[in-house]
Amino acid sequence: MTNLTAGGRLAERVLDRLAQATTDAPGITRVAYGPGERFAHDLVRDEAEELGAVARVDAAGNLYLTLKGRDPTLPAIVIGSHLDSVPHGGNFDGAAGVAVGLAVMAELVGQGIELSRDLIVLATRAEEAVWFPLSYPGSQAALGLLEPQALEAKRADSGRTLADHMLEEGFDPDAVRRGVPGIDAKRIAAFVEVHIEQGPRLVAAGVPVGIVTGIAGGFRYVDAKCFGAYAHSGAEPRFARHDAVLGFADLVAALETEWDALERDGHEATVTFGRVQSDPTQHGGSRVLGELGFTLDVRSAEAAVLDRIEARLQGIFAEVGAKRGVTFEAGPRFTWEPATMSPALIAGMDRAAADLQMQAPHVPSGAGHDAATFAGAGIPTVMLFVRNENGSHNPHEAMEIADLDQAIRLLLRFVTDFDKDQP
Amino acid sequence: MTNLTAGGRLAERVLDRLAQATTDAPGITRVAYGPGERFAHDLVRDEAEELGAVARVDAAGNLYLTLKGRDPTLPAIVIGSHLDSVPHGGNFDGAAGVAVGLAVMAELVGQGIELSRDLIVLATRAEEAVWFPLSYPGSQAALGLLEPQALEAKRADSGRTLADHMLEEGFDPDAVRRGVPGIDAKRIAAFVEVHIEQGPRLVAAGVPVGIVTGIAGGFRYVDAKCFGAYAHSGAEPRFARHDAVLGFADLVAALETEWDALERDGHEATVTFGRVQSDPTQHGGSRVLGELGFTLDVRSAEAAVLDRIEARLQGIFAEVGAKRGVTFEAGPRFTWEPATMSPALIAGMDRAAADLQMQAPHVPSGAGHDAATFAGAGIPTVMLFVRNENGSHNPHEAMEIADLDQAIRLLLRFVTDFDKDQP
Repeated sequence: MTNLTAGGRLAERVLDRLAQATTDAPGITRVAYGPGERFAHDLVRDEAEELGAVARVDAAGNLYLTLKGRDPTLPAIVIGSHLDSVPHGGNFDGAAGVAVGLAVMAELVGQGIELSRDLIVLATRAEEAVWFPLSYPGSQAALGLLEPQALEAKRADSGRTLADHMLEEGFDPDAVRRGVPGIDAKRIAAFVEVHIEQGPRLVAAGVPVGIVTGIAGGFRYVDAKCFGAYAHSGAEPRFARHDAVLGFADLVAALETEWDALERDGHEATVTFGRVQSDPTQHGGSRVLGELGFTLDVRSAEAAVLDRIEARLQGIFAEVGAKRGVTFEAGPRFTWEPATMSPALIAGMDRAAADLQMQAPHVPSGAGHDAATFAGAGIPTVMLFVRNENGSHNPHEAMEIADLDQAIRLLLRFVTDFDKDQP
Repeated sequence: MTNLTAGGRLAERVLDRLAQATTDAPGITRVAYGPGERFAHDLVRDEAEELGAVARVDAAGNLYLTLKGRDPTLPAIVIGSHLDSVPHGGNFDGAAGVAVGLAVMAELVGQGIELSRDLIVLATRAEEAVWFPLSYPGSQAALGLLEPQALEAKRADSGRTLADHMLEEGFDPDAVRRGVPGIDAKRIAAFVEVHIEQGPRLVAAGVPVGIVTGIAGGFRYVDAKCFGAYAHSGAEPRFARHDAVLGFADLVAALETEWDALERDGHEATVTFGRVQSDPTQHGGSRVLGELGFTLDVRSAEAAVLDRIEARLQGIFAEVGAKRGVTFEAGPRFTWEPATMSPALIAGMDRAAADLQMQAPHVPSGAGHDAATFAGAGIPTVMLFVRNENGSHNPHEAMEIADLDQAIRLLLRFVTDFDKDQP
């Protein structure tokens, strides 16, 4: 495509080489601390060094590619993402964000622009929880925040520990265990992560790039149950039934009503029942079900919205219980905190988009990203989403390089205007 | 209880002896064509012969206990029920109906009443489908209607065929196979079955006896599915979801609305989802479900009501499909015909109850009974239900003999007035 920026062409080339080298039909596989991730780190290091950046690897294997700015005392702008993938995943999840960083670097170099502060492209490790059952161990280690016991977590395919795999790749798990950071949080003025969108909001809106307003937190009940009373479908009259299926259906409808109300009030949330199961030792064609198990997953970027849904949930349990003669047992509750994006950085992105006459709507992120680690550590953080069909974590990801190029242009403008925008 | 009729005391004694002899804690077990059923048949035969009845056993082992009437050319009144039970079942299911027949016989003899026609107490075989996967093989054989291949059906506990078990008990499966009936349908003026209620309608109404208006037929989809599209709960925005759980919940709610409408129109039906299951290889906390399997069991004593629900079901599939972006696959459909009770016999029961100043409301039967075989063969048929808590097929059946005694009184009046009532 002749319309691409030089940075866009670089990103396209890097992503093509990555896809070729890590093909694992269908799709690609880049195991965390495995050969695919290693290849990717080597590739982007070579490309950055070619551009004059200085490479550095921390104790966990995170790669920092620094293009020096005029004033070494100013905290840096970091553009970061991961290079591992799920098995048989798509080529763009993670890697596109690092390619964008390289592309911005290439544009700065090509246009002879020297930033006042360092620009660091950060390639993290092991972001995909499918390998280690951990939340972002790479970026956690980059900030010296990884819990020591996390190093004992076992990789799903090898059964060996994170520490083992770090050692095997030549890194220093002991330093990670001691909490030695790869970068000082105070030395980061802004963390920016670019990622393909994972639900088709931008596809639906018909725009290539969106500015992420927050990364959803949430809570999940993994073993919730609605209890009624088992009975014979033909014999038990309607008034005497305690039907767990009717109780569950009422719960679904009532939570959806709450979801509607939240959206009318201008909030974003998701409500999902990811598992619904009657007891195979009890269910059958002529059974009124006395028990129905389910999971409930609720997400929102706003902690207050999560609280509101939780409160409503307890109210629904009571109301449906009284109406249907059933009881609910929510069971264990898992929670994760929402990550707030920096309003100042969002405003900077808005201004950059306006300057470029680029439409860049605000969108939420329902799934987690390394950016959550940085935001959680108090570092001003912002994300961009790039239009993408068919979700992520599968070979059918469909991002256009032309759309990624729009993100490159936006991010280039953002970094060049960064100090101008700072108060 | 001193208030019991002589017949009621006989019924109580018979049921007590049965319970003692077939105890199988918890509850009782009377295997079809097994020792418990054999004991029961021997016991009721002895009791009937004591009263002067003549015993006869047909090729399938059904027992006919005939108290002769004045005119041997008139077709008989048959009071029938079964003597087998489910494993660890209750003592009253089935047996109470035979005990009532003996009790009526005892009352006639004790009061010196001679009916114009024969009264036959019929103890059938193998009514509980848990033993042989067949619908009422005993009563089918009594009317010469049992399909020859049914004799090859295997008993769940022994793995041996119905024919084998008949032979072992001294009966004649070859005659059954040839369709030799135990009784000519044209020789039955009325078939009456008394049974404990299996859902607590009479308990709720506070009355001991009800007159059954019909035995429900029905249809069942044993492998229905709602198909959506699997997606990530956090990433897939609401508008893009095709959530099988929401589709299913809508279906449940819409069918319940139809059930409400049917009841407002004065009809009876039941709608039951006896199994609800997501795919264990696909489901999970963060999944939007792309598939949800379920069974749907619909019953009504009115064929037109079944047709109406089926038509509405197809409409709901289309409406919910369009609204939710899901599709339904109903899968294989099994049907069974409703059995209509004789309006003339119901009227006779109504008159008998009115004469006795007994409240005997009309109730439906959602579960099947031997009576369905007789009604299906065009024989005027009626059933009485006796108040019972905790359903049937379990050791917690809770029928009071005093309530059974009310059924005895009602049935005695019915048979003594039978010829008076005939047009």
